[in-house]
Amino acid sequence: MRAEIISIGTELLLGQVVNSNAAFISRELAALGIEVYHHVTVGDNAERLKEAVETAENRADLIVLSGGLGPTEDDITKQTLSRHLNVDLILHEETEDRIITYHKNSDFEMPENNQLQALILAESTPLANDTGLAVGMILDHDDRHYVLLPGPPDELHPMVENHLKGELVKRLLNEQVLVSRTLRFFGITEAQLAKRIEKIVKEQTNPTVAVYANEGEITVRVTARARTEKEGEQATEEIESAILASLEEYFFGYGEKRLAEVVRDLLLEHEMTITAAESLTGGAFLSSITSDLAAGSVFEGGIVTYSTEIKHDVLHVSQETIDEYGVVSAECAIEMAQKSREMFGADIGVGLTGVAGPGSLEDQIPGTVYIGIAYKGEKTFAKRFHFGYKRNKNRRLAVLNAHELVRRLILDKPIENRLNYDEEQ
Amino acid sequence: MRAEIISIGTELLLGQVVNSNAAFISRELAALGIEVYHHVTVGDNAERLKEAVETAENRADLIVLSGGLGPTEDDITKQTLSRHLNVDLILHEETEDRIITYHKNSDFEMPENNQLQALILAESTPLANDTGLAVGMILDHDDRHYVLLPGPPDELHPMVENHLKGELVKRLLNEQVLVSRTLRFFGITEAQLAKRIEKIVKEQTNPTVAVYANEGEITVRVTARARTEKEGEQATEEIESAILASLEEYFFGYGEKRLAEVVRDLLLEHEMTITAAESLTGGAFLSSITSDLAAGSVFEGGIVTYSTEIKHDVLHVSQETIDEYGVVSAECAIEMAQKSREMFGADIGVGLTGVAGPGSLEDQIPGTVYIGIAYKGEKTFAKRFHFGYKRNKNRRLAVLNAHELVRRLILDKPIENRLNYDEEQ
Repeated sequence: MRAEIISIGTELLLGQVVNSNAAFISRELAALGIEVYHHVTVGDNAERLKEAVETAENRADLIVLSGGLGPTEDDITKQTLSRHLNVDLILHEETEDRIITYHKNSDFEMPENNQLQALILAESTPLANDTGLAVGMILDHDDRHYVLLPGPPDELHPMVENHLKGELVKRLLNEQVLVSRTLRFFGITEAQLAKRIEKIVKEQTNPTVAVYANEGEITVRVTARARTEKEGEQATEEIESAILASLEEYFFGYGEKRLAEVVRDLLLEHEMTITAAESLTGGAFLSSITSDLAAGSVFEGGIVTYSTEIKHDVLHVSQETIDEYGVVSAECAIEMAQKSREMFGADIGVGLTGVAGPGSLEDQIPGTVYIGIAYKGEKTFAKRFHFGYKRNKNRRLAVLNAHELVRRLILDKPIENRLNYDEEQ
Repeated sequence: MRAEIISIGTELLLGQVVNSNAAFISRELAALGIEVYHHVTVGDNAERLKEAVETAENRADLIVLSGGLGPTEDDITKQTLSRHLNVDLILHEETEDRIITYHKNSDFEMPENNQLQALILAESTPLANDTGLAVGMILDHDDRHYVLLPGPPDELHPMVENHLKGELVKRLLNEQVLVSRTLRFFGITEAQLAKRIEKIVKEQTNPTVAVYANEGEITVRVTARARTEKEGEQATEEIESAILASLEEYFFGYGEKRLAEVVRDLLLEHEMTITAAESLTGGAFLSSITSDLAAGSVFEGGIVTYSTEIKHDVLHVSQETIDEYGVVSAECAIEMAQKSREMFGADIGVGLTGVAGPGSLEDQIPGTVYIGIAYKGEKTFAKRFHFGYKRNKNRRLAVLNAHELVRRLILDKPIENRLNYDEEQ
C-alpha cells in the first residue's frame, strides 16, 4: 500500500503553524509498512484541494487528509470530497449527541453550524475524536482509502493511535495482527546506534525496525505483522533480543516514556527522594523533575547556585574546594550534591556545574560539565562530560545525563570513568 | 509573484524530521508579499523531484527547494535541476576554498565528494552559507526563479535572512526597498489582538500586517514596500501608530527578542539583580533566566520550594502565613518573594505558587497561580492568575507572567488588580 498525505490549512502556507501532522502520520504509516512518497499542503481552497486529491489518486491508494473538519466556513474538506467523489454527507448521530452534551456542560453557546462537525461521508467508517468535537472517517471507495483527520495535533494523535491504526490494519493485513514494541536508548549517538544494528534494520521486512532520535534519547520501534498475537510477540522478541545483544548497556526502557519519567518511576518504586544544586543548568534539572505530576512524591525542593558566592554563602560549599579545585570541578560537583542533599533532606543529591558557553570559565572549554552524585550517606562520585554544542543544548544534555546517572545509581548499573568515587562515608 | 516550496528528504517522508523549513520560508515570503499556494515534499529521488519541479513550474514563478545540497549520494537536488533545465554545474571557487580551509582546521578528513557542495548551476547567483559548507543559489531561468537552499535549519535560516531576502527584493521590487518592523505583545490572546486590529490588517496591502502567536507572546510584523528607505519608514510608522493606539498596554518591545530577554536587558540597564522562590513552576522561571548567557550579571541563585516543609524549614516562610492563608495564596507568594530576596541578596524577588494541575490543592482549582513580587525594601505585592490549561502550559504561562510583572515593575507601568500592595516597608 502506498500513501500520500495532504495537509489542509492556509495557516500552514503562511507559516503560522509548522506541519507536525505530516511527520506524525508518516511515522505511524511507516510502522505499518505503508510507504509515503509525497506530502502536499494546500490552503483552505476547494479547487486546489480537489486538484491535490486528483493528483494523489494517480499515485497512491491511501490518501490521508488532515485539517478542515471544523465548524467554520473555511473548513471545506468533507464538502470537497463529497462533491469530488459524488458521495453524500450524512449526520453521524453519536457525534451530534456529543456536541450537544458538550455545549450543555460548558459556558459556550452552540453555534448553528456546529452540526457540520457531525457530518460524515456516506458509507465511511467514523473515527471517534476522543479529545475534540469534529469526527474523523475512513472511506473505502473505488479501490482507494480516503482518511479524513482533524488538524489540531491533540485531536489527530489520539484519533490515529486509538482508531485509525486499527482500521488500517484490518484493510492491510487480511486477518493478520500487528504487534509493535518500542525500545528506548540513551548514551549513544543515533549514528552509532544505527551502525550497530545496520544489518538487522536492512535485512528486516517483517518485523520492521525504525530508528528515531530526539536530542539524546533514541527510539527503536519493532513492528511485526503476524497471523496471531502470539506469533507476532515471538517475532518481535527475537528481533528485540538481537538489538539488545549489541545495545543493552544503553537501553533504558520500553514505550514512549522519557528518561526523566523513567527516573521518576524508579524513585517512586524505590521510595527515594531527590534534590539538586544547579549551576550551569540553572533550574532546568529541577524543572524537568517538577514537570511531572507525581513530582511531589519524590521531590521537596532544590537550589540554583549560579554564582560562586551563592555556592559558598548559601549552599556552604567549602572555600577550600573552591580555591583548590575551582567551581568547574569534580570536587565542587560532589560537594554541591552533598550539600543539597543535606539542605533538602533527600536520599539522592545531584550537583551540576560546568561551562554552558559560549565563553570559557576557569580555563575550561565550553561544554565541559561535571555532574556530582551523593547517595544517602553511602556513596559519592562525579563524572566529567564534554558536550561540544551551543549553550542551551549543552544545558539540556547535562540535564539528561544527570537523569541517566541517577537511573544507573538506583539500578546499580556500571558507571564508567567515575571521578573521586567514595563508597565509605 | 507566486511561490511554491519543495522540500526534499526521505527523512521527512518517514516522519523522522518535522518540516519546519516550509513554515519558515513561507513566513519570510509572506513578509515580502509573495503568495504561497503549495508545499510539496518528496524523498531523495530524482524522478519524483523532477516531477514536483515540473508541476510547480505550471503554477508558480518562484520555486524554492530545500534539502539535498550535501556531499552524499542521496543529495541530488542540484544534479536534478541541472539535467531538467539543461544548465551546467560549475565550481564556485570561494566555496571550494572555504571547504578546504574548514577541513584543514578540523580533525575531519576531507572526503573526495565534498567538492560537490561547491558546485552551483551556471549563471546562478550563489547564496553564501554562513553556518555550513553547502552553498545555496538563485537561478533566473525562463521567467522563473529557482532557489536552492540547504536542509539543516541552522544553515537555511541565516541563508534566507542574510542573502536570499536581498536577492528576492531586487527581483521583486524594481529598485524599490522593503522596510519591516516587528512589534511584540503580551497579556492578550491572539484572537483578541487580531480582533482589535482586524480593520487595519484587512485594509492594508502595503504595508502588510501579519500576526503570529507563540504561547502567550504575540508578534505583529509590518512590512512596507517603498521607493526610498525614508518613505518606507514613514509608511511603517503610520501603521505602527495605528496598531499601538489600540494595543499600547500590551506592547513589550521590537524585534525577535523574547519577553525573558527584554526583562534581562532591563535588569542589565537598571543594574538590578533578580531571584525567585518557585513552587508550582519548580525551577522553570530560574531556568528561563539562566538560559541567557548574560544571566551572570543579573542573577546569582534561587530556590525551588516544592513542599510546604521546605517553604517553612529552608526558605523560612512563617508558619502563621501557611496556617492562616495556605501555600496557594497572595500572602505566601509575597513571603516567598521576600525571603528569596533576602536569601540570595537580590534587588527583586519573585515568588511563584499555585496549582499546576491536574488535581486541586487547598480547594483551589488547577491553573490558579499567585505570583508575588518583592522589590528592594520598598514594595511588595502579589497578583492572582487563572490559566485553564494543562499542567505544563499552566507552568509556562506562570513563568511568562512573572517576567511581565517584573518588566512592569522596572518600568513603573500600571499593574492592575494588585493584591496586598504595600509600598512602605
